[in-house]
Amino acid sequence: MGWSLAVHGGAGPSKHRTYEAEEAHMTALLERGADMLDDGASALDVVTAMVRELEESGQHVDGKGASANSEGVYELDAAVMDGAARRAGAVAALVGFRAPILAARAVMEKTPHVLLAGQGAAAFCGRQGLEQVPDPAAYYTPAVKKALVQGELAHGTVGAVARDASGRLAAATSTGGLLNKLAGRVGDAPLIGSGTWADERVAVSCTGQGEFFIRAAVAADISARMRYGGQTLHAAAAGALADMEAQGGDGGLIAVDAAGNVTAPFVSEGMKRGIATSAGRFEVKTFR
Amino acid sequence: MGWSLAVHGGAGPSKHRTYEAEEAHMTALLERGADMLDDGASALDVVTAMVRELEESGQHVDGKGASANSEGVYELDAAVMDGAARRAGAVAALVGFRAPILAARAVMEKTPHVLLAGQGAAAFCGRQGLEQVPDPAAYYTPAVKKALVQGELAHGTVGAVARDASGRLAAATSTGGLLNKLAGRVGDAPLIGSGTWADERVAVSCTGQGEFFIRAAVAADISARMRYGGQTLHAAAAGALADMEAQGGDGGLIAVDAAGNVTAPFVSEGMKRGIATSAGRFEVKTFR
Repeated sequence: MGWSLAVHGGAGPSKHRTYEAEEAHMTALLERGADMLDDGASALDVVTAMVRELEESGQHVDGKGASANSEGVYELDAAVMDGAARRAGAVAALVGFRAPILAARAVMEKTPHVLLAGQGAAAFCGRQGLEQVPDPAAYYTPAVKKALVQGELAHGTVGAVARDASGRLAAATSTGGLLNKLAGRVGDAPLIGSGTWADERVAVSCTGQGEFFIRAAVAADISARMRYGGQTLHAAAAGALADMEAQGGDGGLIAVDAAGNVTAPFVSEGMKRGIATSAGRFEVKTFR
Repeated sequence: MGWSLAVHGGAGPSKHRTYEAEEAHMTALLERGADMLDDGASALDVVTAMVRELEESGQHVDGKGASANSEGVYELDAAVMDGAARRAGAVAALVGFRAPILAARAVMEKTPHVLLAGQGAAAFCGRQGLEQVPDPAAYYTPAVKKALVQGELAHGTVGAVARDASGRLAAATSTGGLLNKLAGRVGDAPLIGSGTWADERVAVSCTGQGEFFIRAAVAADISARMRYGGQTLHAAAAGALADMEAQGGDGGLIAVDAAGNVTAPFVSEGMKRGIATSAGRFEVKTFR
């Protein structure tokens, strides 16, 4: 039984610039993910590792590359979902910790809860001994500053989805949110069924204008289209994304199904993305 | 064209006690809601008013009757969704404000966001001039104290769904969460697609062990079953709830569809609930 892996670095890219550094990093990242899956790693461990490296890269609007909110505070969101066990963990409006995706995974594994927000999330991360960011101004290097390029969308998210060699599916998403978002704003990334989902059929990680993904329940809708409507992965993902776009939003997503099919549709100008499979597919792209 | 309305006061009731006071309050509440709908009020205004009164009653685990978290802090969650416009607003882990459902509605109407959490949510409520709770110890009168009755479930939520005379659907949910929940814990109530949902087909408000509702995306799943699977409201609600129960949780929900059908299934011992329609149906019950 083979494996499939996809990663994304957000649907914010503008054709006004190129993304060689991001694509080179993503290529190396995918190679490491492929090695892990070849060695029998679980989908859950691989998506966690992929998102953790994307957070740390500073190349995307998440982790080190996050944007500050309207009060100058770095609030981060992340979620992880293990489709085989239908477990999930997430953090929202987390301040002061370096690895939001590890915080999300700790919520999944160390509490009976799915989502912790705000100061309670930070207190939990402290008790778990997760690595702190003692000096935010020194640590964060926002990947998108205000209107670097006129018209560039100041949102971004990273994510990964995988089907491992045992057929298990998992999804992970992490974001630093919107530039100048209101303090406390939570987008779709940490919301199970909105921006992140995994079950026995499909694993999904979304990116884009989160409010529209929430109002269309995009990630869960893909699974529902496959389950109740008998749609293929590609049709389900395209349909859910079209519904989101019809609400007025933009963005994209990556998804993998139980058969190992992968799709990465977007309705924005571009989406930083990479796909690798045990069957030999390997591609990293930003635009169409 | 007629109207339909349903409200719930949580799926926590135990057969070890009776709920006359809650049922009497809910009866009066439903009568006021029926009057509003007879007078042409929008579904959105009616569900907001119903949930606001349930919050204020102190009879349920929300609003005045909320439970403190493990640190003794009252953190509240609420969401509202306007199906006709597919707009939504929500607050999570909100501390210090009296009317979480009005905070959720303000997020929907006064910001481009759907969900605000933690301190940012409180700061927003302060700027909006929403009523504060200056002395939590004096204000809150927890509806469920620790193990009042052995085996009583220490969770609770209130909600309302309506279809107005113009055919518009809306849903609202508010909760004080679980007794002794971790600080920052966010359940399904404020999560669009998990515990609250409204679109052109159906409006849903859930109650129960929120983590399981999140992992099954219960509220959005009901709409998906109707849309892609052609299921009736009753079948869709029962199916989504059965999926939640299969994950190990308990609880219930209220839902109304575009044709005015109403359903109120639960897999817990009881669910405080009331249903009224312009066709003359009027019932308030706690158990089967």
